[in-house]
Amino acid sequence: MSLKIGVIGTGAIGQEHIRRLNQKLVGSQVVAVTDINLEGAQKVADTYGNITVYKTYQEVVADPNVDALVITSWGPVHAEQVMAAIAVGKPVFVEKPMATTADDARKIVDAEIAFGKKLVQVGFMRRYDAGYKLLKEVIDSGKIGEPLVLHCAHRNPTVPTSYVTYMAINDTAIHELDCLHWLINDEWTSAQVIMPRATKNTHDKLKDPQILILTSAKGVRVVLEIFVNCQYGYDIQCEVVGETGIAKLPEPMSIEMRSQEKLSNTILNDWKVRFIESYDVELQDWIDSTVKGEVNGPTAWDGYLASVASDACVKAQESGAIEPIVTAARPTFYN
Amino acid sequence: MSLKIGVIGTGAIGQEHIRRLNQKLVGSQVVAVTDINLEGAQKVADTYGNITVYKTYQEVVADPNVDALVITSWGPVHAEQVMAAIAVGKPVFVEKPMATTADDARKIVDAEIAFGKKLVQVGFMRRYDAGYKLLKEVIDSGKIGEPLVLHCAHRNPTVPTSYVTYMAINDTAIHELDCLHWLINDEWTSAQVIMPRATKNTHDKLKDPQILILTSAKGVRVVLEIFVNCQYGYDIQCEVVGETGIAKLPEPMSIEMRSQEKLSNTILNDWKVRFIESYDVELQDWIDSTVKGEVNGPTAWDGYLASVASDACVKAQESGAIEPIVTAARPTFYN
Amino acid sequence: MSLKIGVIGTGAIGQEHIRRLNQKLVGSQVVAVTDINLEGAQKVADTYGNITVYKTYQEVVADPNVDALVITSWGPVHAEQVMAAIAVGKPVFVEKPMATTADDARKIVDAEIAFGKKLVQVGFMRRYDAGYKLLKEVIDSGKIGEPLVLHCAHRNPTVPTSYVTYMAINDTAIHELDCLHWLINDEWTSAQVIMPRATKNTHDKLKDPQILILTSAKGVRVVLEIFVNCQYGYDIQCEVVGETGIAKLPEPMSIEMRSQEKLSNTILNDWKVRFIESYDVELQDWIDSTVKGEVNGPTAWDGYLASVASDACVKAQESGAIEPIVTAARPTFYN
Amino acid sequence: MSLKIGVIGTGAIGQEHIRRLNQKLVGSQVVAVTDINLEGAQKVADTYGNITVYKTYQEVVADPNVDALVITSWGPVHAEQVMAAIAVGKPVFVEKPMATTADDARKIVDAEIAFGKKLVQVGFMRRYDAGYKLLKEVIDSGKIGEPLVLHCAHRNPTVPTSYVTYMAINDTAIHELDCLHWLINDEWTSAQVIMPRATKNTHDKLKDPQILILTSAKGVRVVLEIFVNCQYGYDIQCEVVGETGIAKLPEPMSIEMRSQEKLSNTILNDWKVRFIESYDVELQDWIDSTVKGEVNGPTAWDGYLASVASDACVKAQESGAIEPIVTAARPTFYN
Repeated sequence: MSLKIGVIGTGAIGQEHIRRLNQKLVGSQVVAVTDINLEGAQKVADTYGNITVYKTYQEVVADPNVDALVITSWGPVHAEQVMAAIAVGKPVFVEKPMATTADDARKIVDAEIAFGKKLVQVGFMRRYDAGYKLLKEVIDSGKIGEPLVLHCAHRNPTVPTSYVTYMAINDTAIHELDCLHWLINDEWTSAQVIMPRATKNTHDKLKDPQILILTSAKGVRVVLEIFVNCQYGYDIQCEVVGETGIAKLPEPMSIEMRSQEKLSNTILNDWKVRFIESYDVELQDWIDSTVKGEVNGPTAWDGYLASVASDACVKAQESGAIEPIVTAARPTFYN
Repeated sequence: MSLKIGVIGTGAIGQEHIRRLNQKLVGSQVVAVTDINLEGAQKVADTYGNITVYKTYQEVVADPNVDALVITSWGPVHAEQVMAAIAVGKPVFVEKPMATTADDARKIVDAEIAFGKKLVQVGFMRRYDAGYKLLKEVIDSGKIGEPLVLHCAHRNPTVPTSYVTYMAINDTAIHELDCLHWLINDEWTSAQVIMPRATKNTHDKLKDPQILILTSAKGVRVVLEIFVNCQYGYDIQCEVVGETGIAKLPEPMSIEMRSQEKLSNTILNDWKVRFIESYDVELQDWIDSTVKGEVNGPTAWDGYLASVASDACVKAQESGAIEPIVTAARPTFYN
Repeated sequence: MSLKIGVIGTGAIGQEHIRRLNQKLVGSQVVAVTDINLEGAQKVADTYGNITVYKTYQEVVADPNVDALVITSWGPVHAEQVMAAIAVGKPVFVEKPMATTADDARKIVDAEIAFGKKLVQVGFMRRYDAGYKLLKEVIDSGKIGEPLVLHCAHRNPTVPTSYVTYMAINDTAIHELDCLHWLINDEWTSAQVIMPRATKNTHDKLKDPQILILTSAKGVRVVLEIFVNCQYGYDIQCEVVGETGIAKLPEPMSIEMRSQEKLSNTILNDWKVRFIESYDVELQDWIDSTVKGEVNGPTAWDGYLASVASDACVKAQESGAIEPIVTAARPTFYN
Repeated sequence: MSLKIGVIGTGAIGQEHIRRLNQKLVGSQVVAVTDINLEGAQKVADTYGNITVYKTYQEVVADPNVDALVITSWGPVHAEQVMAAIAVGKPVFVEKPMATTADDARKIVDAEIAFGKKLVQVGFMRRYDAGYKLLKEVIDSGKIGEPLVLHCAHRNPTVPTSYVTYMAINDTAIHELDCLHWLINDEWTSAQVIMPRATKNTHDKLKDPQILILTSAKGVRVVLEIFVNCQYGYDIQCEVVGETGIAKLPEPMSIEMRSQEKLSNTILNDWKVRFIESYDVELQDWIDSTVKGEVNGPTAWDGYLASVASDACVKAQESGAIEPIVTAARPTFYN
């Protein structure tokens, strides 16, 4: 029996997810779609057949044939669409950000608690990356003792000139804000942003690179270098220093070459290639969990935490000071 | 529309493939099974439902509801079962060995050619391993020039005492016999086996390690160390020396650790873990190709080549001489 | 013609240097020694022969047979002994610290400038490490563009309980304070120290690990993790992030092993082994330079910079704030 | 007291050794030289002063001021010059080859035994390479059990066209013929040479690459790829497969770079750079041993073994067969 899915938003990422849900993953079937660009939605529906096209997201949510929702619309409308799904008690997978303000995020959390059952999963796909999963296994095994310091880097070869300073948090570090607190099973309490010497390959609206320092409730410190014009490739680094040892995120698999006086491995230049498989794993896990009535991925609470943390980080970019990250106490509902 | 599959043989590997076909892969459904252990077959059928259990493989082959066959029975009966599938023009995936004699293998080739369309895929899964695929891409790209020498190793931590000298070819090197000729797009012409000093961890019926040297039609030499009691882990190595550079099969992904005065990565100890993903990729590719009426994996011709080559290698184990590998000319049918 | 050397201080490091100067290096000969433990000095002299033992350092400095001085006495007396050498115009190699206060260090700088010729080399041996030299070559070559961020770590397996918080600067980070400004050809302007969650393997007088963040005049940021009870080994890491690429200090040479399900390299556990060769290179370079009337290693100015920087770092440990590192303008004498 | 040395042959390698002996190493002084090019010898002598130039090697050997000899003349005269040194009981360091025929090598062995004390060291410098020394330590430690198979490669970027097939043995593999038997503490008993597909970058007088397979008395097999036009660099590989693990020669130290979509380390292109330090270590060890009246490096017996083995290898190149390597029984004198 397939999970029947309504997709809200049929832009690029929406289309990719529809392809996954219909052709690559097991146990799911897209039965309804909508988009502000209705023609686009219709075109997608025609590609697969057996998909109802609605003019509004409300109709998709309400369609009794729809078991669960995937929200891949424009970020600013995510929160109200998630709230609508919770209102009718339907499971919902929402791409990041779950909400664009901490207040909206908090409202989702409260609504979900009020409903009495977890319904929301947020699209932080890194938790599904094979490397991060292996890294978490090592940490959880106790082989390196308690984590104390994380040295991380998030580097892109280049970004368009429309990318400005705060996006280093909202578009880039947002992945680490979620993934690393999951990795060490902890929550953030403060943030500091240091602006090193800028690369010549940036412009006056973008400070690049940046160093983000996060403190967790247990005192763990994350040192995250964000460098979005590093030129050499797309490179994600994460090294966890524990009390008795260190564990490092694997490099993506590549062929070791001896050629032209170099012993070399290829570095990727595209984030899509780096995390392409984790999208499949993420959505398959969501399908399987949803069928069981569970949420096993990033919850609404994680979406709320990311929202509060990113606000504090942007403030820290501007102030240069150590900014507190103040969240409500974790509801037992999310334990 | 799912491909409806009949599975002949419901032992360990049969059960794994049925689980894949029914639960993990897309576009397939097992509709009929048989096994010499009929109770076992019935039990498997009960697990999934909607599967007809037959007493004979002939009935499975003949069932009009069966679109394609998967043969995971005992090796000595593979050839006749494959012939039966060809006789009715049904696509068939057969686990290694396709046949236990070169003559039987040749008969399958002839039957397939007579039928006029490729129907047979042999279960050499290494071609579907992500590492080997990357390696082939590099070779085909010309980045290292023409291949000249391959340094390979196939190592197991231990084998049971029932494993004896000739199995180093038939159970172990058989994977390289297929995979490496595909890798370099060439065919074998001779084999030599060298017996180095034996490890103390073997017994008098098993020479271990062994060094197999293969020559290809273009003169490429493969030096393959087979060492099935190497103790330290399951380890597959392949380094291709080309005219201008060298490319090496990646190590399986693992976490780099600094601990107890070692900088280390884990080595696997189980071949199933090493190639588990390639089985999924292999069968998904087979399903997708079959639906299109194609065979894109190892063909009956590859099964025939492996059969002739392994016979020559076993002879070379005994003679100590360089033994020719004499195959018929490649039919244009297989180009 | 050998350089005739007077050694002030015949403790452990003094004895090692005397052995180097007399038996391992070329062009030097120890002709005079002194120590507060006169018996010890005599014993050392007897080992080699042809060495005059003096009761005071003043006599060693004054001995007309002494061409140059090596100071390996107790740190607090280094400054006055260096001043005495400058007073008579004799070249002097002084182990770290050159002086225990920034004022004393400044007096040495002034005295040397007044004398009109460089005479002092400070014993920062890391600049002579083969790995750091290769790293500096890469940076100077421009292959990674201008340096922007340095990720560094200085880790010891354990320290005695007498090692307390400020020693993380004065005994440990002092090496990076000198070496890294040389590496990037820049000077420090501020320091911040962050105290992460402490390891269980420390005690209440030692915060461990610590993260030291240095800013240079050009805006380069150094993130240095100091972790002196890391358990797993002695480990020095340095990764330089430049505008177009990254260069990393090599791991010490070791044998790659496949054994017991690990692919591993040994990590050292002793700093002496890590830098043993750099002491030889350092002193040979000092001998050769001294004979030519030059100072090519760390100068009195470098000794002064290290002194000012370490004072600021200790203050930053206590304040938790970003502390300025205020030095005099670099005299043209040291360009 | 310096060891006073007479050098026979002042060509390129002679001049390098003289510089080492006079300026870089401790405890040696060149006091006499000769060369067939007398002007050249005079020029070298003038560079250093205090060196007597003789017209004949006999005079150098006879000079009572000469304690020990270094032979860096043309290969074909090495044997008679070594014999002359033995005749007067003077220690002698002779560059490879010790002799150009196995008969001449054997005569040297016999003469040395007759003299009653080891006098001859052969210039196989690889035993002094830091990497090989570490590798031997691991093997001798028993950490990988008894060695069974060695996978080795000796690759040059290019060779001049005057380099022809047999030189792959006499000029190239000769290093492995000595070094590897020392590494595993064993002697060769047979050789086979396999000629793979030739690279396009060779010519009709040079088969390139070649695979040399050696058998030792204990049954260990060495598979040595010799590839002297590999284009990509100078690369020496050695991997020792033991009963319980594998140990691999380290790559030369280099900076790991992330640049231009590559994670890379530099590969050397010049053998002189690869082994430059081992020459220093080798000659320093020879000086120190000679002063003690010992030979601790490769002996005349090793020179004899290399001579017999290389003859058999050249024969194996031509015959394509497995050729025996027949040496006399090891005299107890060399245990």
